[in-house]
Amino acid sequence: MNGARLVPESLPEEPAVHRYRSHTCGALRPSDVGGTTRLSGWCHRIRDHGGVLFIDLRDHYGLTQCVVDSDSKAFKAAEGVRSEWVIRIDGRVRQRPAGTENPELPTGAIEVYIDDLEVLGAAAELPMPVFGDVEYPEETRLRYRFLDLRREKLHANIMKRGAIIDALRRRMRDGGFFEFQTPILTASSPEGARDFLVPSRLHPGKFYALPQAPQQFKQLTMIAGFDRYFQIAPCFRDEDARADRSPGEFYQLDIEMSFVTQEDVFQSVEPVLRGVFEDFAEGKRVTPVFPRITYADAMLKYGVDKPDLRNPLIIADVTDEFAEEAVEFKAFKGVIKSGGVVRAIPATGAGAQPRSFFDKLNDWARSEGAPGLGYIVFEEEGGQLTGRGPIAKFIPAEIQARIAQKAGAKAGDAVFFAAGPEAKAAALAGKARIRIGDDLGLSDKDQYAFCWITDFPMFEWNEDEKKIDFSHNPFSMPNFDHEAFLNLGEADAETILGIKAFQYDIVCNGIELSSGAIRNHKPEIMEKAFGLAGYGKDVLEAKFGGMLSALRLGAPPHGGIAPGVDRIVMLLCNEPNIREVVLFPMNQRAEDLMMSAPSEATPKQLRELHIRLNLPEKKA
Amino acid sequence: MNGARLVPESLPEEPAVHRYRSHTCGALRPSDVGGTTRLSGWCHRIRDHGGVLFIDLRDHYGLTQCVVDSDSKAFKAAEGVRSEWVIRIDGRVRQRPAGTENPELPTGAIEVYIDDLEVLGAAAELPMPVFGDVEYPEETRLRYRFLDLRREKLHANIMKRGAIIDALRRRMRDGGFFEFQTPILTASSPEGARDFLVPSRLHPGKFYALPQAPQQFKQLTMIAGFDRYFQIAPCFRDEDARADRSPGEFYQLDIEMSFVTQEDVFQSVEPVLRGVFEDFAEGKRVTPVFPRITYADAMLKYGVDKPDLRNPLIIADVTDEFAEEAVEFKAFKGVIKSGGVVRAIPATGAGAQPRSFFDKLNDWARSEGAPGLGYIVFEEEGGQLTGRGPIAKFIPAEIQARIAQKAGAKAGDAVFFAAGPEAKAAALAGKARIRIGDDLGLSDKDQYAFCWITDFPMFEWNEDEKKIDFSHNPFSMPNFDHEAFLNLGEADAETILGIKAFQYDIVCNGIELSSGAIRNHKPEIMEKAFGLAGYGKDVLEAKFGGMLSALRLGAPPHGGIAPGVDRIVMLLCNEPNIREVVLFPMNQRAEDLMMSAPSEATPKQLRELHIRLNLPEKKA
Repeated sequence: MNGARLVPESLPEEPAVHRYRSHTCGALRPSDVGGTTRLSGWCHRIRDHGGVLFIDLRDHYGLTQCVVDSDSKAFKAAEGVRSEWVIRIDGRVRQRPAGTENPELPTGAIEVYIDDLEVLGAAAELPMPVFGDVEYPEETRLRYRFLDLRREKLHANIMKRGAIIDALRRRMRDGGFFEFQTPILTASSPEGARDFLVPSRLHPGKFYALPQAPQQFKQLTMIAGFDRYFQIAPCFRDEDARADRSPGEFYQLDIEMSFVTQEDVFQSVEPVLRGVFEDFAEGKRVTPVFPRITYADAMLKYGVDKPDLRNPLIIADVTDEFAEEAVEFKAFKGVIKSGGVVRAIPATGAGAQPRSFFDKLNDWARSEGAPGLGYIVFEEEGGQLTGRGPIAKFIPAEIQARIAQKAGAKAGDAVFFAAGPEAKAAALAGKARIRIGDDLGLSDKDQYAFCWITDFPMFEWNEDEKKIDFSHNPFSMPNFDHEAFLNLGEADAETILGIKAFQYDIVCNGIELSSGAIRNHKPEIMEKAFGLAGYGKDVLEAKFGGMLSALRLGAPPHGGIAPGVDRIVMLLCNEPNIREVVLFPMNQRAEDLMMSAPSEATPKQLRELHIRLNLPEKKA
Repeated sequence: MNGARLVPESLPEEPAVHRYRSHTCGALRPSDVGGTTRLSGWCHRIRDHGGVLFIDLRDHYGLTQCVVDSDSKAFKAAEGVRSEWVIRIDGRVRQRPAGTENPELPTGAIEVYIDDLEVLGAAAELPMPVFGDVEYPEETRLRYRFLDLRREKLHANIMKRGAIIDALRRRMRDGGFFEFQTPILTASSPEGARDFLVPSRLHPGKFYALPQAPQQFKQLTMIAGFDRYFQIAPCFRDEDARADRSPGEFYQLDIEMSFVTQEDVFQSVEPVLRGVFEDFAEGKRVTPVFPRITYADAMLKYGVDKPDLRNPLIIADVTDEFAEEAVEFKAFKGVIKSGGVVRAIPATGAGAQPRSFFDKLNDWARSEGAPGLGYIVFEEEGGQLTGRGPIAKFIPAEIQARIAQKAGAKAGDAVFFAAGPEAKAAALAGKARIRIGDDLGLSDKDQYAFCWITDFPMFEWNEDEKKIDFSHNPFSMPNFDHEAFLNLGEADAETILGIKAFQYDIVCNGIELSSGAIRNHKPEIMEKAFGLAGYGKDVLEAKFGGMLSALRLGAPPHGGIAPGVDRIVMLLCNEPNIREVVLFPMNQRAEDLMMSAPSEATPKQLRELHIRLNLPEKKA
């Protein structure tokens, strides 16, 4: 709330004085003492000090303490106002009595003695107060969102959201990008989530879809030759609500570039995100150069493809160590024999923890469906690292030392183990890493820790259907010589499963802000890729026909990304719930309680749209 | 198209050279001669000069002439490329031979000799060319919009649209406004057009509506205390297409302000519009101070509430003159007797026109359903103004002189007359004014002529239902003392019909860019207004319940406006059709031919949305 002065310098004398205000409620300073003022705003707090009324008057820009007593002709009117009434006052600016100044308030040195008071908008009894920080049920807060939004924190969040979006736009423009508006009433797009449909009045039986993302349109914008696209784009997915996603609509910073490599996308996007986070981090550190971690490395070291790098723990593979003949721990040996792996999670300083720390972790692991977490606690004995704990005795000292080294454990640290088939062991190790880091307080939360995840596999083995399938995004460009790719055949399964895609994620504090990719802009490569995954040209045409026809008429190499705006704002406002950073959100049931949406349509509307209701049968 | 240099100063030598380009196609200058370059772009035009191929390479930033002959190892590859193929070339920058420079092109002094050529994206046979200005059918242009967008004019329009929106945003922010995002999946709003509906999956039988405008949300934003709102807001109306409105969606610069009078809105919005028009007018004049014309005056002087002020003609009322006993023109006398009026439209310089000019105007008037347009041509005879023409002889010279004076006619001018019931006569006079101005070439088209229209009547007499009804927007604040308003009764019909609203239009070159209003923020005034128009509180609650509940919990006085972004861009691009200024528009039938929208939904989708189709019966 900045204290803009609306009528600069002019004394508020009739008739020059504005109908509603000469100053905002955040503007008056000691230099204004002795002058008159006209203010309008909400009665934030009213205190009755026996014949003297104090009214804290609030507007978007700040708060001003106003005073009235029975000497004023406005006293009677003032006695009638209540919290959240909107009033206009005329008054004289005076110094606050010594000792009553409020240094936390920009206007805290002055107060206004009320000479005249007009009620602009009365308020009935409030369903929830604005003043004070009392928690209110979500339903009340959403039904009376306009009241909730008057509260300081939410008001500040929404203003910060706007400032963040302004900063994103400015940095994108400064980076040579242009903003475009793509259609909202459009066709279904192959993004994989559920579409919102809009029945067409002019075309009976047909429907528009709201865009899950402007993916195809941004690619078409590149094919049309516009070179550098961005948009603060509304996106729509009919998915059930999550804390970090509104049911219904959300915004992304949609980006696409022509004639670029993956490196160009990183070089363009990284400074925008770093810059915006630095602008709004309020003292938290921001990763100066985003590390790049391959998908394979991320799965190994962090057990997840969106690692929270605030947590310093790094997982190590110790399969080889446990496979050694000298190791006698049978449970892990069995896992390894059937093709599984053993992962080691260091627990820095855990040696000082009581037994219950280890027991609790084991209980947690069992609640995750694992048989438990083996562990070794390392101590120093005569200059030697020695392990203790339930499985230490099965492992010779020399191999214990190798494990400690691989896991980066020193004396006083512990190492936990997760064993199993690779995917399961990695996931369990990843979760254990988070849990151990949290339990030991190892994460430095005072930062925004970014990384790029790269080299996602293009294909994977579909065990259910016993076939090669797409691993992530079928429309990404394979990182493979194009000629050689076209010549791949059935005998090349291993080669095919080893192909990486030019596909990447940007991650902050363990939250995936976006996937991105260099797009497959060559129809023949795309057909081949679909062929390798067992899909005919007909599937491709059906899913992606409009785009394919465009790719066949002169398409440039291009790629992009689309960081989630709401998630960026949540991170920067330190809010775990998206409803704290969206102006008018829906509730978890995808309802707008304030505007009563969704609601019933009239028979005439349904007739015009060529649809009938098909309601579920009432339960008896 | 600005000529950004992508890799500043560095010589494109391996391995530093970028995968696709060292320069854009708009960057090279004589100072680059002697160096090497890497360019990527579309083959705009290919000319074969017998063993020498000229390829004009085009990208977003410009055009560079490239040359190759059989001395180059790239010659064979170059012979294979066709129009709109995307290629990458490496080459040497050289001066164009004397006499072949193209001063119209920023790169026109140089050319690039091709040493290497790679096809990045081939193109099949084109359904329409990009080079050249040949007109193509709308359907082809929309189906292959990505090709059409490569054409110079459309590309420039879309870039200009983006720049205009950037400028609107910048000026709004500089004016102390903040941008907010209001919901797109919401409830039906009482804007009067047809809603697009979105069936709810979670709430069987219920529907969201896409916002016709964020009217209620921007008012709620004010009631929530945000003071200054704007949004480049997508709006949705399921109305049939018009040249100046997309079927489906359009954008408006949505604005709302708290604690303001109508004058504040004018003072905030006028500099934004004037500034943006000045920025993009390309030499045309922009009204320095927008005149304010009352609705009554506009209807009298221009016969319409959105006058095109580029036309200098001003209509006058000459009812009194024709009512004089000395006038013997019976047709008009009859009109006046039955309560009608006579309006005079000056036709500056029409005295020099042949008889056919007058006959054609009369034919036109009859085609408009009028009995014809009487007229007098004024000449000077011995220092005296004398009228001639079919009806002049029925009007004494002295009264003719008064008519000439009222209509601002001099010797050599004519005056036409439109007579009838006031609304009809005004409308006919308005159309005649436009027609006469156009026929005589009186309008100075080299300008953007703005005006505000103010003082719209709050109520009007509904002759069909014999009752008082709202005239325009029922939610505007009446310009009337609030206490007195609450005391109006049935006996005050005349007073009520005389009440003006704080409602206004902004008009440019005869196009209404927006209506706006100071909102009625007082529930009791709104209930009274609805009561005076014969509607009970139940109607108000049903139409406006959510807002009313908000107005009852502390609402500030507020008002705003919402100029149409697409219309602003059309004006500044001098395009009469909205499809020339929208990136991916639908056709007149509300279809996206490129993406095939709308399209059929699957039975599963319909089931999930609890709807069934209700198709019209096929005609036999």
